[in-house]
Amino acid sequence: MNEFQLIERLRPLLASSDMVRTGAGDDCAVLDIGLPDRDVLFKTDAVVETVHFTKDAPPEKVGHKALARCLSDVAAMGGTPTAALVTLGLPLEFDPGYVERLYQGMNDLARAFQVAVPGGETTRNPGGIFISISLLGLVKKGRAVLRSGARVGDAIFVTGELGGSLAGKHLDFTPRVAEGQWLAENFQIHSMIDVSDGLAGDLRHLLGHGHVGAELLSDAIPITRAARLQARSESAAKPPLLAALTDGEDFELLLTIASKDAVKLLDAWKARFPALKLSCIGRITKNPGVRLQDQNGVKNLSMHGYTHFTGS
Amino acid sequence: MNEFQLIERLRPLLASSDMVRTGAGDDCAVLDIGLPDRDVLFKTDAVVETVHFTKDAPPEKVGHKALARCLSDVAAMGGTPTAALVTLGLPLEFDPGYVERLYQGMNDLARAFQVAVPGGETTRNPGGIFISISLLGLVKKGRAVLRSGARVGDAIFVTGELGGSLAGKHLDFTPRVAEGQWLAENFQIHSMIDVSDGLAGDLRHLLGHGHVGAELLSDAIPITRAARLQARSESAAKPPLLAALTDGEDFELLLTIASKDAVKLLDAWKARFPALKLSCIGRITKNPGVRLQDQNGVKNLSMHGYTHFTGS
Repeated sequence: MNEFQLIERLRPLLASSDMVRTGAGDDCAVLDIGLPDRDVLFKTDAVVETVHFTKDAPPEKVGHKALARCLSDVAAMGGTPTAALVTLGLPLEFDPGYVERLYQGMNDLARAFQVAVPGGETTRNPGGIFISISLLGLVKKGRAVLRSGARVGDAIFVTGELGGSLAGKHLDFTPRVAEGQWLAENFQIHSMIDVSDGLAGDLRHLLGHGHVGAELLSDAIPITRAARLQARSESAAKPPLLAALTDGEDFELLLTIASKDAVKLLDAWKARFPALKLSCIGRITKNPGVRLQDQNGVKNLSMHGYTHFTGS
Repeated sequence: MNEFQLIERLRPLLASSDMVRTGAGDDCAVLDIGLPDRDVLFKTDAVVETVHFTKDAPPEKVGHKALARCLSDVAAMGGTPTAALVTLGLPLEFDPGYVERLYQGMNDLARAFQVAVPGGETTRNPGGIFISISLLGLVKKGRAVLRSGARVGDAIFVTGELGGSLAGKHLDFTPRVAEGQWLAENFQIHSMIDVSDGLAGDLRHLLGHGHVGAELLSDAIPITRAARLQARSESAAKPPLLAALTDGEDFELLLTIASKDAVKLLDAWKARFPALKLSCIGRITKNPGVRLQDQNGVKNLSMHGYTHFTGS
């Protein structure tokens, strides 16, 4: 049983209440706690030694990554992160200097995004370092951008470039908070998610449990220099396009918008964020599933890459 | 370096912001996020396999305990818990039925306290099960009861009975949420905390970093039947009073109030919570440190019990 199957099994057990606007299954929970003009975003996430980082990674970057992952989820709803709490599981033997540097990296990022860290717990975790972050954010009431709003004909956009994150970006990426807010405030974004498991996998979360599909243009998918370099230098490495589709931990924003707004969005983006790419990579289709189109035709795309050819 | 020393070292690194009313060092963080009449309480806590529970404990009770610990912290500020998120670290091999029962116990408790659980993450944790809970609560604006308000002459009260929690209570206690709210709404409670590390240790958190002290009356300390039974049946067991002072995981409320209000509080409590004991166990003194008075005189009390006699 994998993580997704387990979560599906647990979801019906979850307690709910009147204040829940959006519950399990989106980037953050959305709560109406009585603010006149804002909803609260609520998110937890963890990074674990040997699973998400190794002991040789600089601890500042590990702390940065732990918080940045949550900031990225708030960004994907168009919200503003405001306060984070840290729960740190430590093995019996630990280096206080390591923990201090980890906190330093986390709090430097918090300050850069004006996020308060009003506390932290530590506990013992025999197996290694476990960093659980809990984040509160705010978003205009009723305006959180969900994963579920994609419509047939929507243009699909992605920020930045994808692939090869393990070469370094996964430890020092900048969460797209300003970009997510700007998108939500200035455009009717139909659906949005941050790319953590890879484009091929995360795009599926925007397809309304298979009610719609997507077609990607392989030439339009922005690929990082890291993914290209890797493909060139290591014979066993993934081809760059496959890396961009499946590596994950890109923490870029993936979104859909009515195709009539696509050009206006691209123009406004270039003016507002000239240093960051925004690429139109395909469109939402009535036909379910995800397909990839290149000069040779159309391929079906699985979570883990392209599988078999269906002809053009 | 123990947990407390580590937290002291990390605290100066924490990022803050205008919205933080109370940060690290209390039962919960207190945030003013713009609600006209309420502050937000924010808390995280974790329970870890082999540290806080063993594999033979019923998973429903483990789930109950994980959430109940956080509810107890909100109770100790006089607040109302509203929404919780769960981050679950699981070893590579896990039993989905175990996890389901764990969720069942957690969500049954959540429903009983009208707390929503609008999501949960799972991740891998090679060393065993790690359950991190993040909780939001609400409290009347500016009325969260802190740890820091004890004054010389205050009467010290504790709810319920203490000691012997490991015999079972630590897994199925009822957090004192209704009691904490009622106390905060009807009385000027000067300081409050929940007893998690043991009366002798937690009382110190109410003494303003040693600016005041406390004197306890040994005969007044309420002791559980479990602690008494244990002392009788096992020759190596702690004497009951020592168990009540140091066992911990009681999750009762410990509070101080002006002595002039003490009788009124006791009378009102008996009318409102007839089934739950409330005991006046001592008073706040100008003389720093914690002392225990019995028929033989006054003893100094350390975090771990009574140490040496100082005469009466």
